[in-house]
Amino acid sequence: MDSAPDTPRLDAQMAFLGEADRLKAVIRATRVTGNRFENSAEHSWHVALYALTLAEHAPEGCDTTRVIQMLLLHDLVEIDAGDNPIFGDHDAAAMEAAEAAAADRLFGLLPADQAASFRAIWDEFEANETPEARFAKSLDRFAPPVLNMAAGGGSWSDYSVEWDTFETRVAPKIASGAPGLWQWLRPRARAVFDRLAGRA
Amino acid sequence: MDSAPDTPRLDAQMAFLGEADRLKAVIRATRVTGNRFENSAEHSWHVALYALTLAEHAPEGCDTTRVIQMLLLHDLVEIDAGDNPIFGDHDAAAMEAAEAAAADRLFGLLPADQAASFRAIWDEFEANETPEARFAKSLDRFAPPVLNMAAGGGSWSDYSVEWDTFETRVAPKIASGAPGLWQWLRPRARAVFDRLAGRA
Ligand SMILES: [Ca+2]
Repeated sequence: MDSAPDTPRLDAQMAFLGEADRLKAVIRATRVTGNRFENSAEHSWHVALYALTLAEHAPEGCDTTRVIQMLLLHDLVEIDAGDNPIFGDHDAAAMEAAEAAAADRLFGLLPADQAASFRAIWDEFEANETPEARFAKSLDRFAPPVLNMAAGGGSWSDYSVEWDTFETRVAPKIASGAPGLWQWLRPRARAVFDRLAGRA
Repeated sequence: MDSAPDTPRLDAQMAFLGEADRLKAVIRATRVTGNRFENSAEHSWHVALYALTLAEHAPEGCDTTRVIQMLLLHDLVEIDAGDNPIFGDHDAAAMEAAEAAAADRLFGLLPADQAASFRAIWDEFEANETPEARFAKSLDRFAPPVLNMAAGGGSWSDYSVEWDTFETRVAPKIASGAPGLWQWLRPRARAVFDRLAGRA
Protein backbone atom coordinates (compact mmCIF):
# COMPACT_ATOMS: atom_id res chain seq x y z
CA MET A 1 0.00 0.00 0.00
CA ASP A 2 3.04 2.29 -0.27
CA SER A 3 1.68 3.71 -3.52
CA ALA A 4 -1.71 4.68 -2.04
CA PRO A 5 -2.01 8.46 -1.77
CA ASP A 6 -3.38 9.95 1.45
CA THR A 7 -7.20 10.07 1.12
CA PRO A 8 -8.66 10.37 4.62
CA ARG A 9 -12.01 11.66 3.38
CA LEU A 10 -12.55 8.84 0.87
CA ASP A 11 -11.21 6.32 3.41
CA ALA A 12 -13.94 7.44 5.83
CA GLN A 13 -16.63 7.21 3.14
CA MET A 14 -15.47 3.70 2.23
CA ALA A 15 -15.46 2.65 5.90
CA PHE A 16 -19.11 3.76 6.07
CA LEU A 17 -20.04 1.93 2.84
CA GLY A 18 -18.24 -1.20 4.02
CA GLU A 19 -20.08 -1.20 7.34
CA ALA A 20 -23.38 -0.57 5.49
CA ASP A 21 -22.93 -3.96 3.81
CA ARG A 22 -24.08 -5.54 7.07
CA LEU A 23 -27.63 -4.29 6.46
CA LYS A 24 -27.88 -7.22 4.01
CA ALA A 25 -27.72 -9.54 7.03
CA VAL A 26 -30.57 -7.90 8.99
CA ILE A 27 -33.59 -10.14 8.55
CA ARG A 28 -37.15 -8.79 8.56
CA ALA A 29 -40.51 -10.40 9.32
CA THR A 30 -41.72 -10.08 5.72
CA ARG A 31 -41.21 -12.66 2.98
CA VAL A 32 -40.17 -12.06 -0.61
CA THR A 33 -40.98 -13.96 -3.81
CA GLY A 34 -39.88 -17.54 -3.12
CA ASN A 35 -41.00 -17.27 0.52
CA ARG A 36 -37.66 -16.56 2.21
CA PHE A 37 -37.46 -13.72 4.73
CA GLU A 38 -36.57 -10.30 3.39
CA ASN A 39 -33.44 -8.45 4.48
CA SER A 40 -33.33 -4.74 5.25
CA ALA A 41 -30.99 -3.84 2.37
CA GLU A 42 -33.22 -5.25 -0.36
CA HIS A 43 -36.24 -3.76 1.46
CA SER A 44 -34.50 -0.37 1.34
CA TRP A 45 -34.01 -0.72 -2.42
CA HIS A 46 -37.61 -1.74 -2.90
CA VAL A 47 -39.09 1.20 -0.97
CA ALA A 48 -36.78 3.63 -2.78
CA LEU A 49 -38.19 2.19 -6.03
CA TYR A 50 -41.68 2.66 -4.56
CA ALA A 51 -40.86 6.34 -4.03
CA LEU A 52 -39.63 6.73 -7.61
CA THR A 53 -42.66 4.93 -9.02
CA LEU A 54 -45.37 6.35 -6.75
CA ALA A 55 -44.11 9.95 -6.53
CA GLU A 56 -47.43 11.27 -7.86
CA HIS A 57 -49.18 9.92 -4.75
CA ALA A 58 -47.00 12.03 -2.43
CA PRO A 59 -48.31 15.05 -0.52
CA GLU A 60 -48.31 18.35 -2.41
CA GLY A 61 -44.83 19.88 -2.77
CA CYS A 62 -42.99 16.75 -1.66
CA ASP A 63 -39.37 16.49 -2.88
CA THR A 64 -38.97 12.91 -4.14
CA THR A 65 -35.18 13.18 -4.20
CA ARG A 66 -35.14 13.75 -0.45
CA VAL A 67 -37.67 10.93 0.07
CA ILE A 68 -35.38 8.51 -1.77
CA GLN A 69 -32.37 9.67 0.28
CA MET A 70 -34.36 9.01 3.47
CA LEU A 71 -35.35 5.55 2.32
CA LEU A 72 -31.79 4.62 1.34
CA LEU A 73 -30.63 5.57 4.84
CA HIS A 74 -33.68 4.83 7.01
CA ASP A 75 -32.84 1.30 8.15
CA LEU A 76 -29.05 1.52 8.57
CA VAL A 77 -29.48 1.82 12.33
CA GLU A 78 -30.80 -1.76 12.29
CA ILE A 79 -27.20 -2.93 11.77
CA ASP A 80 -26.71 -2.30 15.48
CA ALA A 81 -30.27 -2.09 16.81
CA GLY A 82 -31.98 -4.85 14.77
CA ASP A 83 -35.35 -4.78 13.04
CA ASN A 84 -38.54 -4.43 15.05
CA PRO A 85 -41.57 -5.99 13.42
CA ILE A 86 -44.60 -3.75 13.74
CA PHE A 87 -46.62 -6.59 15.27
CA GLY A 88 -43.89 -7.62 17.70
CA ASP A 89 -43.57 -6.41 21.27
CA HIS A 90 -40.70 -4.14 22.18
CA ASP A 91 -39.78 -1.37 24.56
CA ALA A 92 -40.19 1.79 22.47
CA ALA A 93 -37.92 3.99 24.61
CA ALA A 94 -35.12 1.42 24.75
CA MET A 95 -35.45 0.94 21.00
CA GLU A 96 -35.22 4.66 20.34
CA ALA A 97 -32.08 4.93 22.47
CA ALA A 98 -30.49 1.95 20.70
CA GLU A 99 -31.25 3.44 17.29
CA ALA A 100 -29.86 6.85 18.25
CA ALA A 101 -26.64 5.19 19.45
CA ALA A 102 -26.49 3.24 16.18
CA ALA A 103 -26.93 6.45 14.19
CA ASP A 104 -24.11 8.07 16.18
CA ARG A 105 -21.77 5.19 15.42
CA LEU A 106 -22.67 4.54 11.78
CA PHE A 107 -23.02 8.07 10.45
CA GLY A 108 -20.03 8.95 12.65
CA LEU A 109 -17.85 6.83 10.33
CA LEU A 110 -18.29 9.51 7.65
CA PRO A 111 -16.40 12.82 7.32
CA ALA A 112 -17.96 15.27 9.82
CA ASP A 113 -19.91 17.39 7.30
CA GLN A 114 -21.42 14.31 5.70
CA ALA A 115 -22.09 12.65 9.04
CA ALA A 116 -24.14 15.72 9.97
CA SER A 117 -26.07 15.83 6.70
CA PHE A 118 -26.88 12.09 6.66
CA ARG A 119 -27.87 12.27 10.32
CA ALA A 120 -30.16 15.21 9.53
CA ILE A 121 -31.86 13.16 6.81
CA TRP A 122 -32.38 10.25 9.22
CA ASP A 123 -33.54 12.54 12.06
CA GLU A 124 -36.04 14.15 9.68
CA PHE A 125 -37.36 10.72 8.69
CA GLU A 126 -37.73 9.68 12.33
CA ALA A 127 -39.46 12.93 13.35
CA ASN A 128 -42.11 12.27 10.67
CA GLU A 129 -43.11 15.92 10.34
CA THR A 130 -42.12 17.14 6.87
CA PRO A 131 -44.07 16.00 3.77
CA GLU A 132 -40.96 14.08 2.68
CA ALA A 133 -40.69 12.17 5.96
CA ARG A 134 -44.42 11.47 6.05
CA PHE A 135 -44.39 10.07 2.52
CA ALA A 136 -41.23 8.04 3.17
CA LYS A 137 -42.69 6.58 6.40
CA SER A 138 -45.94 5.79 4.62
CA LEU A 139 -44.12 3.88 1.88
CA ASP A 140 -42.10 2.03 4.52
CA ARG A 141 -45.41 0.92 6.09
CA PHE A 142 -47.15 0.26 2.78
CA ALA A 143 -44.58 -2.14 1.28
CA PRO A 144 -44.83 -4.95 3.90
CA PRO A 145 -48.62 -5.42 3.52
CA VAL A 146 -48.12 -5.56 -0.25
CA LEU A 147 -45.61 -8.40 0.26
CA ASN A 148 -47.96 -10.10 2.73
CA MET A 149 -50.76 -10.01 0.16
CA ALA A 150 -48.46 -11.51 -2.48
CA ALA A 151 -47.49 -14.25 0.01
CA GLY A 152 -51.16 -14.91 0.88
CA GLY A 153 -50.57 -13.95 4.52
CA GLY A 154 -46.84 -13.70 5.29
CA SER A 155 -46.17 -11.96 8.60
CA TRP A 156 -49.93 -11.58 9.17
CA SER A 157 -50.15 -15.38 9.39
CA ASP A 158 -46.85 -15.76 11.26
CA TYR A 159 -47.90 -13.27 13.95
CA SER A 160 -51.64 -14.22 13.87
CA VAL A 161 -52.56 -10.62 13.21
CA GLU A 162 -56.26 -9.68 13.33
CA TRP A 163 -57.81 -7.22 10.91
CA ASP A 164 -58.60 -4.73 13.69
CA THR A 165 -55.00 -4.75 14.90
CA PHE A 166 -53.77 -4.23 11.36
CA GLU A 167 -56.20 -1.39 10.72
CA THR A 168 -55.42 0.28 14.04
CA ARG A 169 -51.64 0.02 13.87
CA VAL A 170 -50.88 0.24 10.18
CA ALA A 171 -53.65 2.22 8.47
CA PRO A 172 -52.91 5.57 10.16
CA LYS A 173 -49.22 5.26 9.33
CA ILE A 174 -49.93 4.69 5.63
CA ALA A 175 -52.84 7.12 5.36
CA SER A 176 -50.88 9.92 7.03
CA GLY A 177 -48.48 10.43 4.13
CA ALA A 178 -50.24 8.57 1.33
CA PRO A 179 -54.02 8.39 1.74
CA GLY A 180 -54.51 7.18 -1.84
CA LEU A 181 -52.29 4.18 -1.18
CA TRP A 182 -54.26 3.22 1.92
CA GLN A 183 -57.49 3.43 -0.09
CA TRP A 184 -55.96 1.12 -2.68
CA LEU A 185 -54.66 -1.27 -0.05
CA ARG A 186 -57.65 -1.52 2.26
CA PRO A 187 -60.07 -3.69 0.24
CA ARG A 188 -57.25 -5.87 -1.09
CA ALA A 189 -55.74 -6.49 2.35
CA ARG A 190 -59.20 -7.05 3.83
CA ALA A 191 -59.87 -9.79 1.27
CA VAL A 192 -56.68 -11.61 2.37
CA PHE A 193 -57.56 -11.28 6.07
CA ASP A 194 -61.06 -12.59 5.36
CA ARG A 195 -59.61 -15.57 3.51
CA LEU A 196 -57.16 -16.27 6.36
CA ALA A 197 -60.04 -16.11 8.86
CA GLY A 198 -62.12 -18.47 6.70
CA ARG A 199 -64.74 -15.80 6.10
CA ALA A 200 -64.34 -15.73 2.31
CA MET B 1 -63.01 -6.15 -3.80
CA ASP B 2 -66.39 -4.55 -4.57
CA SER B 3 -65.41 -1.49 -2.58
CA ALA B 4 -62.14 -0.89 -4.52
CA PRO B 5 -62.40 2.23 -6.67
CA ASP B 6 -61.17 2.07 -10.24
CA THR B 7 -57.43 2.93 -10.17
CA PRO B 8 -55.86 1.63 -13.42
CA ARG B 9 -52.81 3.85 -13.12
CA LEU B 10 -51.96 2.80 -9.57
CA ASP B 11 -52.79 -0.83 -10.44
CA ALA B 12 -50.17 -0.69 -13.20
CA GLN B 13 -47.60 0.87 -10.86
CA MET B 14 -48.26 -1.83 -8.27
CA ALA B 15 -47.94 -4.57 -10.90
CA PHE B 16 -44.51 -3.16 -11.76
CA LEU B 17 -43.46 -2.95 -8.09
CA GLY B 18 -44.71 -6.49 -7.45
CA GLU B 19 -42.74 -7.87 -10.39
CA ALA B 20 -39.68 -5.90 -9.25
CA ASP B 21 -39.67 -8.00 -6.06
CA ARG B 22 -38.17 -10.82 -8.13
CA LEU B 23 -34.87 -8.92 -8.38
CA LYS B 24 -34.30 -10.14 -4.80
CA ALA B 25 -33.97 -13.66 -6.24
CA VAL B 26 -31.33 -12.81 -8.87
CA ILE B 27 -28.01 -14.05 -7.48
CA ARG B 28 -24.70 -12.38 -8.32
CA ALA B 29 -21.11 -13.63 -8.29
CA THR B 30 -20.11 -11.35 -5.40
CA ARG B 31 -20.33 -12.23 -1.71
CA VAL B 32 -21.61 -10.07 1.13
CA THR B 33 -20.67 -9.97 4.82
CA GLY B 34 -21.19 -13.52 6.08
CA ASN B 35 -19.97 -14.95 2.75
CA ARG B 36 -23.30 -15.70 1.06
CA PHE B 37 -23.81 -14.59 -2.53
CA GLU B 38 -25.26 -11.14 -3.07
CA ASN B 39 -28.59 -10.59 -4.82
CA SER B 40 -29.22 -7.84 -7.35
CA ALA B 41 -31.79 -5.97 -5.23
CA GLU B 42 -29.49 -5.46 -2.25
CA HIS B 43 -26.65 -4.66 -4.68
CA SER B 44 -28.88 -1.97 -6.23
CA TRP B 45 -29.47 -0.46 -2.79
CA HIS B 46 -25.78 -0.53 -1.99
CA VAL B 47 -24.68 1.21 -5.21
CA ALA B 48 -27.40 3.85 -4.78
CA LEU B 49 -25.92 4.46 -1.32
CA TYR B 50 -22.47 4.65 -2.95
CA ALA B 51 -23.82 7.38 -5.24
CA LEU B 52 -25.24 9.34 -2.30
CA THR B 53 -22.03 8.98 -0.29
CA LEU B 54 -19.47 9.46 -3.08
CA ALA B 55 -21.25 12.22 -5.04
CA GLU B 56 -18.23 14.52 -4.67
CA HIS B 57 -16.17 12.05 -6.75
CA ALA B 58 -18.54 12.34 -9.74
CA PRO B 59 -17.60 14.14 -12.96
CA GLU B 60 -18.18 17.92 -13.01
CA GLY B 61 -21.87 18.87 -13.32
CA CYS B 62 -23.17 15.36 -12.61
CA ASP B 63 -26.77 15.22 -11.28
CA THR B 64 -26.68 12.76 -8.37
CA THR B 65 -30.46 12.45 -8.31
CA ARG B 66 -30.42 11.03 -11.83
CA VAL B 67 -27.49 8.75 -10.95
CA ILE B 68 -29.48 7.29 -8.06
CA GLN B 69 -32.53 6.79 -10.29
CA MET B 70 -30.34 4.90 -12.79
CA LEU B 71 -28.89 2.70 -10.09
CA LEU B 72 -32.31 1.88 -8.62
CA LEU B 73 -33.46 0.74 -12.09
CA HIS B 74 -30.25 -0.53 -13.71
CA ASP B 75 -30.50 -4.23 -12.87
CA LEU B 76 -34.26 -4.81 -13.19
CA VAL B 77 -33.74 -6.42 -16.62
CA GLU B 78 -31.90 -9.25 -14.82
CA ILE B 79 -35.29 -10.50 -13.63
CA ASP B 80 -35.73 -11.92 -17.14
CA ALA B 81 -32.18 -11.87 -18.53
CA GLY B 82 -30.15 -12.97 -15.48
CA ASP B 83 -26.90 -11.54 -14.13
CA ASN B 84 -23.70 -11.77 -16.19
CA PRO B 85 -20.55 -11.80 -14.11
CA ILE B 86 -17.89 -9.58 -15.63
CA PHE B 87 -15.39 -12.48 -15.58
CA GLY B 88 -17.83 -15.03 -17.05
CA ASP B 89 -18.17 -15.84 -20.74
CA HIS B 90 -21.32 -14.78 -22.54
CA ASP B 91 -22.54 -13.76 -25.97
CA ALA B 92 -22.72 -9.97 -25.78
CA ALA B 93 -25.19 -9.50 -28.65
CA ALA B 94 -27.58 -12.17 -27.35
CA MET B 95 -27.33 -10.64 -23.89
CA GLU B 96 -28.13 -7.18 -25.18
CA ALA B 97 -31.20 -8.49 -27.03
CA ALA B 98 -32.41 -10.38 -23.94
CA GLU B 99 -32.01 -7.27 -21.79
CA ALA B 100 -33.86 -5.07 -24.28
CA ALA B 101 -36.74 -7.56 -24.34
CA ALA B 102 -36.74 -7.59 -20.54
CA ALA B 103 -36.86 -3.79 -20.45
CA ASP B 104 -39.82 -3.85 -22.87
CA ARG B 105 -41.72 -6.26 -20.66
CA LEU B 106 -40.87 -4.85 -17.24
CA PHE B 107 -41.12 -1.11 -17.88
CA GLY B 108 -44.13 -1.93 -20.08
CA LEU B 109 -46.04 -2.88 -16.94
CA LEU B 110 -46.13 0.82 -15.99
CA PRO B 111 -48.49 3.52 -17.30
CA ALA B 112 -47.22 4.57 -20.76
CA ASP B 113 -45.71 7.93 -19.74
CA GLN B 114 -43.85 6.35 -16.86
CA ALA B 115 -42.78 3.35 -18.94
CA ALA B 116 -41.18 5.81 -21.37
CA SER B 117 -39.42 7.84 -18.69
CA PHE B 118 -38.06 4.81 -16.80
CA ARG B 119 -36.95 3.26 -20.09
CA ALA B 120 -35.16 6.51 -20.99
CA ILE B 121 -33.29 6.37 -17.67
CA TRP B 122 -32.24 2.77 -18.30
CA ASP B 123 -31.30 3.46 -21.96
CA GLU B 124 -29.18 6.41 -20.82
CA PHE B 125 -27.40 4.18 -18.30
CA GLU B 126 -26.74 1.52 -20.91
CA ALA B 127 -25.48 4.04 -23.50
CA ASN B 128 -22.86 5.21 -20.97
CA GLU B 129 -22.42 8.64 -22.56
CA THR B 130 -23.73 11.27 -20.14
CA PRO B 131 -21.76 12.15 -16.97
CA GLU B 132 -24.60 10.60 -14.93
CA ALA B 133 -24.44 7.29 -16.80
CA ARG B 134 -20.66 7.19 -16.66
CA PHE B 135 -20.61 7.80 -12.92
CA ALA B 136 -23.41 5.26 -12.32
CA LYS B 137 -21.61 2.62 -14.42
CA SER B 138 -18.35 3.32 -12.62
CA LEU B 139 -19.98 2.82 -9.23
CA ASP B 140 -21.59 -0.39 -10.48
CA ARG B 141 -18.10 -1.63 -11.43
CA PHE B 142 -16.42 -0.27 -8.30
CA ALA B 143 -18.65 -1.94 -5.70
CA PRO B 144 -17.88 -5.61 -6.55
CA PRO B 145 -14.07 -5.24 -6.13
CA VAL B 146 -14.72 -3.55 -2.80
CA LEU B 147 -16.74 -6.59 -1.71
CA ASN B 148 -14.07 -8.93 -3.05
CA MET B 149 -11.43 -7.13 -1.00
CA ALA B 150 -13.59 -7.42 2.12
CA ALA B 151 -14.03 -11.15 1.40
CA GLY B 152 -10.27 -11.61 0.84
CA GLY B 153 -10.86 -12.69 -2.76
CA GLY B 154 -14.54 -13.45 -3.41
CA SER B 155 -15.32 -13.74 -7.12
CA TRP B 156 -11.63 -13.13 -7.95
CA SER B 157 -10.83 -16.44 -6.24
CA ASP B 158 -13.96 -18.21 -7.53
CA TYR B 159 -13.18 -17.30 -11.15
CA SER B 160 -9.35 -17.52 -10.76
CA VAL B 161 -9.02 -13.97 -12.02
CA GLU B 162 -5.48 -12.68 -12.75
CA TRP B 163 -4.42 -9.13 -11.97
CA ASP B 164 -3.89 -8.30 -15.66
CA THR B 165 -7.40 -9.47 -16.55
CA PHE B 166 -8.83 -7.43 -13.71
CA GLU B 167 -6.90 -4.34 -14.67
CA THR B 168 -7.77 -4.69 -18.37
CA ARG B 169 -11.47 -5.38 -17.94
CA VAL B 170 -12.42 -3.46 -14.83
CA ALA B 171 -10.04 -0.51 -14.48
CA PRO B 172 -11.21 1.39 -17.59
CA LYS B 173 -14.86 1.00 -16.56
CA ILE B 174 -14.22 2.48 -13.11
CA ALA B 175 -11.71 5.11 -14.22
CA SER B 176 -13.99 6.37 -16.99
CA GLY B 177 -16.58 7.90 -14.65
CA ALA B 178 -14.69 7.99 -11.37
CA PRO B 179 -10.89 8.19 -11.78
CA GLY B 180 -10.38 9.05 -8.11
CA LEU B 181 -12.09 5.84 -7.07
CA TRP B 182 -9.87 3.74 -9.33
CA GLN B 183 -6.80 5.43 -7.84
CA TRP B 184 -8.08 4.53 -4.39
CA LEU B 185 -8.90 0.99 -5.38
CA ARG B 186 -5.81 0.06 -7.39
CA PRO B 187 -3.15 -0.40 -4.65
CA ARG B 188 -5.68 -2.00 -2.29
CA ALA B 189 -6.94 -4.49 -4.88
CA ARG B 190 -3.38 -5.20 -6.00
CA ALA B 191 -2.42 -6.13 -2.45
CA VAL B 192 -5.24 -8.70 -2.34
CA PHE B 193 -4.27 -10.17 -5.73
CA ASP B 194 -0.64 -10.41 -4.60
CA ARG B 195 -1.71 -12.20 -1.45
CA LEU B 196 -3.90 -14.62 -3.44
CA ALA B 197 -0.99 -15.32 -5.80
CA GLY B 198 1.32 -15.94 -2.84
CA ARG B 199 3.48 -12.97 -3.75
CA ALA B 200 2.92 -11.09 -0.54
CA1 LIG C 1 -37.97 -0.51 9.02
